[in-house]
Amino acid sequence: MDEDALRSLLDAVGDGSVPPGEAADRLRRLPYADIGFARVDHHRRLRTGLPEAVYGPGKTADECVAIVGELLDGGDGPVILTRADDAQRDAVLAAHPGGTSTGRRHHLVTWRPAPPRSATVVVASAGTADRPVADECAAALTALGLPPVRLADVGVAGLHRLLPEVERLATADAVVVVAGMEGALASVVGGLTGAPVVAVPTSVGYGASLEGVTALLAMLASCSPGVVAVGIDNGFGAACAVVRLLAPVAARA
Amino acid sequence: MDEDALRSLLDAVGDGSVPPGEAADRLRRLPYADIGFARVDHHRRLRTGLPEAVYGPGKTADECVAIVGELLDGGDGPVILTRADDAQRDAVLAAHPGGTSTGRRHHLVTWRPAPPRSATVVVASAGTADRPVADECAAALTALGLPPVRLADVGVAGLHRLLPEVERLATADAVVVVAGMEGALASVVGGLTGAPVVAVPTSVGYGASLEGVTALLAMLASCSPGVVAVGIDNGFGAACAVVRLLAPVAARA
Amino acid sequence: MDEDALRSLLDAVGDGSVPPGEAADRLRRLPYADIGFARVDHHRRLRTGLPEAVYGPGKTADECVAIVGELLDGGDGPVILTRADDAQRDAVLAAHPGGTSTGRRHHLVTWRPAPPRSATVVVASAGTADRPVADECAAALTALGLPPVRLADVGVAGLHRLLPEVERLATADAVVVVAGMEGALASVVGGLTGAPVVAVPTSVGYGASLEGVTALLAMLASCSPGVVAVGIDNGFGAACAVVRLLAPVAARA
Amino acid sequence: MDEDALRSLLDAVGDGSVPPGEAADRLRRLPYADIGFARVDHHRRLRTGLPEAVYGPGKTADECVAIVGELLDGGDGPVILTRADDAQRDAVLAAHPGGTSTGRRHHLVTWRPAPPRSATVVVASAGTADRPVADECAAALTALGLPPVRLADVGVAGLHRLLPEVERLATADAVVVVAGMEGALASVVGGLTGAPVVAVPTSVGYGASLEGVTALLAMLASCSPGVVAVGIDNGFGAACAVVRLLAPVAARA
Amino acid sequence: MDEDALRSLLDAVGDGSVPPGEAADRLRRLPYADIGFARVDHHRRLRTGLPEAVYGPGKTADECVAIVGELLDGGDGPVILTRADDAQRDAVLAAHPGGTSTGRRHHLVTWRPAPPRSATVVVASAGTADRPVADECAAALTALGLPPVRLADVGVAGLHRLLPEVERLATADAVVVVAGMEGALASVVGGLTGAPVVAVPTSVGYGASLEGVTALLAMLASCSPGVVAVGIDNGFGAACAVVRLLAPVAARA
Amino acid sequence: MDEDALRSLLDAVGDGSVPPGEAADRLRRLPYADIGFARVDHHRRLRTGLPEAVYGPGKTADECVAIVGELLDGGDGPVILTRADDAQRDAVLAAHPGGTSTGRRHHLVTWRPAPPRSATVVVASAGTADRPVADECAAALTALGLPPVRLADVGVAGLHRLLPEVERLATADAVVVVAGMEGALASVVGGLTGAPVVAVPTSVGYGASLEGVTALLAMLASCSPGVVAVGIDNGFGAACAVVRLLAPVAARA
Amino acid sequence: MDEDALRSLLDAVGDGSVPPGEAADRLRRLPYADIGFARVDHHRRLRTGLPEAVYGPGKTADECVAIVGELLDGGDGPVILTRADDAQRDAVLAAHPGGTSTGRRHHLVTWRPAPPRSATVVVASAGTADRPVADECAAALTALGLPPVRLADVGVAGLHRLLPEVERLATADAVVVVAGMEGALASVVGGLTGAPVVAVPTSVGYGASLEGVTALLAMLASCSPGVVAVGIDNGFGAACAVVRLLAPVAARA
Amino acid sequence: MDEDALRSLLDAVGDGSVPPGEAADRLRRLPYADIGFARVDHHRRLRTGLPEAVYGPGKTADECVAIVGELLDGGDGPVILTRADDAQRDAVLAAHPGGTSTGRRHHLVTWRPAPPRSATVVVASAGTADRPVADECAAALTALGLPPVRLADVGVAGLHRLLPEVERLATADAVVVVAGMEGALASVVGGLTGAPVVAVPTSVGYGASLEGVTALLAMLASCSPGVVAVGIDNGFGAACAVVRLLAPVAARA
Repeated sequence: MDEDALRSLLDAVGDGSVPPGEAADRLRRLPYADIGFARVDHHRRLRTGLPEAVYGPGKTADECVAIVGELLDGGDGPVILTRADDAQRDAVLAAHPGGTSTGRRHHLVTWRPAPPRSATVVVASAGTADRPVADECAAALTALGLPPVRLADVGVAGLHRLLPEVERLATADAVVVVAGMEGALASVVGGLTGAPVVAVPTSVGYGASLEGVTALLAMLASCSPGVVAVGIDNGFGAACAVVRLLAPVAARA
Repeated sequence: MDEDALRSLLDAVGDGSVPPGEAADRLRRLPYADIGFARVDHHRRLRTGLPEAVYGPGKTADECVAIVGELLDGGDGPVILTRADDAQRDAVLAAHPGGTSTGRRHHLVTWRPAPPRSATVVVASAGTADRPVADECAAALTALGLPPVRLADVGVAGLHRLLPEVERLATADAVVVVAGMEGALASVVGGLTGAPVVAVPTSVGYGASLEGVTALLAMLASCSPGVVAVGIDNGFGAACAVVRLLAPVAARA
Repeated sequence: MDEDALRSLLDAVGDGSVPPGEAADRLRRLPYADIGFARVDHHRRLRTGLPEAVYGPGKTADECVAIVGELLDGGDGPVILTRADDAQRDAVLAAHPGGTSTGRRHHLVTWRPAPPRSATVVVASAGTADRPVADECAAALTALGLPPVRLADVGVAGLHRLLPEVERLATADAVVVVAGMEGALASVVGGLTGAPVVAVPTSVGYGASLEGVTALLAMLASCSPGVVAVGIDNGFGAACAVVRLLAPVAARA
Repeated sequence: MDEDALRSLLDAVGDGSVPPGEAADRLRRLPYADIGFARVDHHRRLRTGLPEAVYGPGKTADECVAIVGELLDGGDGPVILTRADDAQRDAVLAAHPGGTSTGRRHHLVTWRPAPPRSATVVVASAGTADRPVADECAAALTALGLPPVRLADVGVAGLHRLLPEVERLATADAVVVVAGMEGALASVVGGLTGAPVVAVPTSVGYGASLEGVTALLAMLASCSPGVVAVGIDNGFGAACAVVRLLAPVAARA
Repeated sequence: MDEDALRSLLDAVGDGSVPPGEAADRLRRLPYADIGFARVDHHRRLRTGLPEAVYGPGKTADECVAIVGELLDGGDGPVILTRADDAQRDAVLAAHPGGTSTGRRHHLVTWRPAPPRSATVVVASAGTADRPVADECAAALTALGLPPVRLADVGVAGLHRLLPEVERLATADAVVVVAGMEGALASVVGGLTGAPVVAVPTSVGYGASLEGVTALLAMLASCSPGVVAVGIDNGFGAACAVVRLLAPVAARA
Repeated sequence: MDEDALRSLLDAVGDGSVPPGEAADRLRRLPYADIGFARVDHHRRLRTGLPEAVYGPGKTADECVAIVGELLDGGDGPVILTRADDAQRDAVLAAHPGGTSTGRRHHLVTWRPAPPRSATVVVASAGTADRPVADECAAALTALGLPPVRLADVGVAGLHRLLPEVERLATADAVVVVAGMEGALASVVGGLTGAPVVAVPTSVGYGASLEGVTALLAMLASCSPGVVAVGIDNGFGAACAVVRLLAPVAARA
Repeated sequence: MDEDALRSLLDAVGDGSVPPGEAADRLRRLPYADIGFARVDHHRRLRTGLPEAVYGPGKTADECVAIVGELLDGGDGPVILTRADDAQRDAVLAAHPGGTSTGRRHHLVTWRPAPPRSATVVVASAGTADRPVADECAAALTALGLPPVRLADVGVAGLHRLLPEVERLATADAVVVVAGMEGALASVVGGLTGAPVVAVPTSVGYGASLEGVTALLAMLASCSPGVVAVGIDNGFGAACAVVRLLAPVAARA
Repeated sequence: MDEDALRSLLDAVGDGSVPPGEAADRLRRLPYADIGFARVDHHRRLRTGLPEAVYGPGKTADECVAIVGELLDGGDGPVILTRADDAQRDAVLAAHPGGTSTGRRHHLVTWRPAPPRSATVVVASAGTADRPVADECAAALTALGLPPVRLADVGVAGLHRLLPEVERLATADAVVVVAGMEGALASVVGGLTGAPVVAVPTSVGYGASLEGVTALLAMLASCSPGVVAVGIDNGFGAACAVVRLLAPVAARA
């Protein structure tokens, strides 16, 4: 599937160093470790520059421990557990020391953060209620080597709190905007900077906020061209998007 | 139903000047003129300070002519036909000279505008595509005695176009915000002024704009407290809302 | 951003009393107090006539205490905490004596109510189940200097309960209509008065009420022109809307 | 399937007058006429008291002609074609003289109306724009022997137009309420009469009316107990509902 | 509002037996009892033939006790409390002996059932999971003098359970169909009987059932003409609809 | 209703061995056992090849015990209780030994599994969070004689985990795809195999997953022709679909 | 990607008959023909047993001609163009003689139908308005070698039209149910047969039919276990689903 | 608003070279040209690196000509008109020679494309029906200096068409994925590359595609972390997003 690897393997078959049957086997077995109830993807980081995040919901605490263990054993980069409940978090932190946990109702747990890089990422959030999602995003960015600058409480109902930060927004390498309710911050920030703007709608608000759908739609219908969105409350997804866009092309080649 | 009128009528019955049967008749017949296919509400202006607007859709051009005629004959205040199609507009303008028409696909036609009052109403629209709705609103306001100041093309993607108008927004008696796409302008304006802000979502935009639903939800979920909304593309409704809130209480008593 | 303040500052720079660097600094720092996890907006009341309401959800009780404290220290007008849970309410009331709390599942807590003004605001609610939202609205109005007249239980299924109040509705300065289920009360009241009508849909009802969406849509599609709406269950927002529309223009200039 | 008929048939088999094979055949063939592309239901009127309405959409004009012809030949009661387009209407009226057509964009065509019965049915519509749906309902009622009283233009924004009709509503055998926009008329009428109230939401209105969905939801969430609804714009369905509820039980036994 | 009463009152004013001021007062005070936090509608039963049902949600148990007490004192017909929670039910049953309670998560409590009438009402439910809603409907019907015949578990996936009941459906005075999931039972029953069919969608099912919305839409889009619907899970509303349609016209005149 | 049975019965009536009255009685009583609160469908398995599954929600534990008991007594094939809560599961397992339970929040309990058949069914699930639904499907398949091959954790974000299984997918008799989030696995599998693909959307994911609606829509809009879907989280329904399509035609004749 | 092919190729590389570079090339070029603006998938039929259907919308008539030509040249099995507009249909039929076209607003055009197989497929449609979708399905089935039996006009409002066909349904190899409005036919048929039931919701109906969404949801929420659905109006998709489930396993191996 | 400019202006005021009044004026007038009906934003390109796109809908052809003219006069970078109808396109191309137009129903017209840069952007589209949106994206990218590599017709139903392009995807600087129907291509591509992936849902498909909403939701709920989305059919927005993320930081500082 990775064409270079395929060609190498074909070369090896061609020069006899790998018999055909073994080549087919390798193709099947190489990229992941099957640990019975899950297939752990050691290969993903090479393939996409992103570590495989373990998604907590639906797994037992023991399964989380096992998968995280497999990932820690299988490489030396960051390992991330997302949307963990209390029991899952407690179990993995106990079993695998050195992890860092962020969050309230659900937790992002990270191990072996990547060394910080020099890029400037801004995570701007509209209100304090949006903070848990912004926290998740910032923690993931930190684990992935991009510790962000935080701008909290800069919602558009008080532009004077946002305007002094224009310089910072304009010179950032990427901006993540975290906002619930009507999500207008994304449009305003999009008009103030030419940096990539990744918008994260949050489920903050009630009534017509429709648990984040309103903010999501508003961000997608933004009058500021080039603003992009990830799913509702998906702070981790926004962090991954930033990693994608700040990865040196060489690293992906 | 109007208690004062009821009491007067009761007094008249009590002093013998009106017999009971006639009183009951009057109650039934007084407030509107039944012209066969419609009940024309001469009474509404007294009751609510608003003229009855004739809603075009579903009526034949002849019916529009007849109802507008009945309203013009039955009083001396403004008369308004909303959402008229081309045929309806042409027919009423021909039959009832002196009308003014605004709009492209559907028309707002007005007769006998009220004398201008001194209040300052601002109609701010986000993009040129929102203009037809803003035009409808401004035309209705003008007919109702509140010719507005227009601020066009002040969408939030270019805040520098909006910020020089802050003074005007802050000192207005009322602000109507007309915006489609993500409707963020309502929240931003709401944070810049203490004046009443009536938000009109428009069906401008495509895809995630959902024909105005996104802007509507965003305006209702606004992080700026006290912003109110009317229905999608309802420039006329916003004008009526402004008339309501700027009517001297005495006029309603 | 406030043009008057900007011009003053520019004048001060022009006459040498303020050096340019300091002017830029002031612009950045003046309007809010950064207390670490939040930016408290002392400036909002001057700017919009509305105090900044602290939105409870997503904050710890300690954070609520700190922000409320900052607001109480930073001015002398009303301070409001909205949508507080039990723990937040208990903490702020203990830390900042003199507050008043309203509500059942979530609380509106207010300090230093503004002195009552002479305007007449009516808060009409359709059923007893709508009362919590009407209570929130009334408590906010009281805190903001506009203690309302209450009309409870005047839903349209029993018009005879509403009709005797027509006089009161017709002479009010503003009417807030709080209704769930099909929200028809807003349309009926809108036809009975020329006063501004702010409709608050509530999440009362079940099944086809869709947790307030039905009432919201019905209020926005009202056949009574000029009825405006705020978000579902947003009694506080309706109170702010009333404050906006009853603020003397002078106060905003 | 009709148990009485089944038992008769079984009796006939039991006494030898009908052989078993023929009985099974009869069961299969009896209740409808298969005319190739459709199965015409002569039996329905006996079974439900309602004639089979031919639903126009998706049929060619020729097919409409054939099915209507089959129905006219197969009985002597009313025959109804619903939602016919212009071509279908022209074809059936030409082929089957004596029909009556109602409607603008789509037509209800009826033949052989049932003799009028003594019951009083009121069809109340909110605005003139709702009239096409009310017309369809009234035409169907007339065809089915229940020519209705019409109350047009009695929307709730002008209660004084509705209140004089309270007596008529209170003494009706059934009331059909036709309303678009927010559909509040159904709730108000439901509170004024103990008669059955069948609500028909219409797709009148724009924006937040959501093409009738708002009115539909509002009618289903009505605060007036016992109000029932049919589908959007379904004037014919409402007429059928009235026929069901006013049919003498004997006629159904 | 009741024209007859109005005319009597006018007569009394006309002949001097009632002074005008008192007449206006009576109009305001007559039809309900204001008990502080609620307006109890003694008049409704006369007006609509339906007792006023007390809607539990949003009321305290004490309020329920007081309103039910007021209704019991103010007349001699049935009194109904709907959607009561456990505490409300316990309180009203303790305070007002003689009540009957039905339901699991929420309760319908009734007092003084009307004497049974001779009409035949069938309540057919699709699955055992629909039973709570069917129970609510049946209990309300019983309280209102129309104890129904129950047909449980006759869903369309096993037509052989429904077909033997065709006779009963065909000869009923009214049929209530209670069904969740896809709600197909309403269409099938509608094709088997000419009796009025009131469909109650239930929130039974998961996934694509969308908490009753699917059944609701399906019932409204029924291919059986004349089927009417009430809101989701609204067994009480269906009972009221049946009372409306089976009330002798004389009783409403 | 079953025509063969009907004809036999008619023959019996014809030859006098069954009197007509008894025949009608038999038709009514034969196919189910009325146990008071439910009609148990012993006939379904003959009719459709599927056992009647008892749907847990809305039933008391005692009712579950009784219905399961009736089914166990009335035949010798598999008996299945779906969506049981803990209390229901515990009660039926205690009352009817030999059952097997699967699931976490709700349980599928089965008795008397059918003997395994030779067909190859693959149950492929995208992530570990989808496993509970896949487990329900697999348990039902096993009970119905089609124990499946499981492919877990083969989501499309790591195609290299899916591609080695292509052979297995291509040669299966049927494939069930269980996926939440965006449900893309169904489309990818549909392109890799010509076997029937039954897609089960799951409510896994948050935000824009809309509790399974996104996956459901995506599966229905699949670009792979011939992919079919069942309702959200409906693992049992997918198992039944597979049983339908793998049943030998002879068994259904 | 096809593992067998891959292994053969690897064997060829291993024995020197194919050099590695050529192998990689072949992998890239083999399975489709790149004709500039489209990649024609000659391989699909081998891979999935289904021909690649050309989806008309978005293509020019010339492009349709070219792609169909490529498919006709590249194999000898059936070729299908779906959702063609009039211009596309006319162009392809002119350019590629021997095609057969079905449909009204959009067309299904087929060439080289597969020889008919012996399986019995029933296509049952509820009303004549559903016929275009049923026609599309039947035409596709015929092209794919499974000419179906048609049952038209067997909607559940007249069960007597459906019941005589029970035998045919029970003995079919597969049943496609095509229904709009409330889509109840799928549930009823699902209870009458153990054959696979593929439900196709149609956009027939108006108002609460929501252009097919109601029928779609109803089919997915069916109380008949094991009913599966395809997308709205997707008669072609249903045909493909039937081909999948009736393909001999051997043919797929 | 631009802090640097502000400080310069303040400096100028401080040293007397600009009087305060003029400074305030400049702030108001500087960044845009008010041409009567629109405010043309010459400043945007400096501020965000993106040219202001003129949004066609709602403007007359003459207005488009004027605004484009203003933009062409006011700078030397690319000028773009989006969503133009035929009349608008014809007018602007006639008035402003040198433009390039792309599209079918609506057009993207560009002038003065930026010189091509060296980055590699891939625009991958799922089917030929998605091409108009992909074309719009590619044309905009070309105008903005980033002419893309096109991968057409690589939908997931035929993975073998996508897999040979893995290398290209893995080494791209950014990938735009354009897909309708279920939008699965975004997830699959997201798993194959670490490059930024901007997903554009298209309104291609019918029925359950819900005019692009299904693809949009699926892309937002993607199981591939870090995939971002823009609005439905918003190829231009995706191009802007790519420009944002590939802009050298220096260019934005």
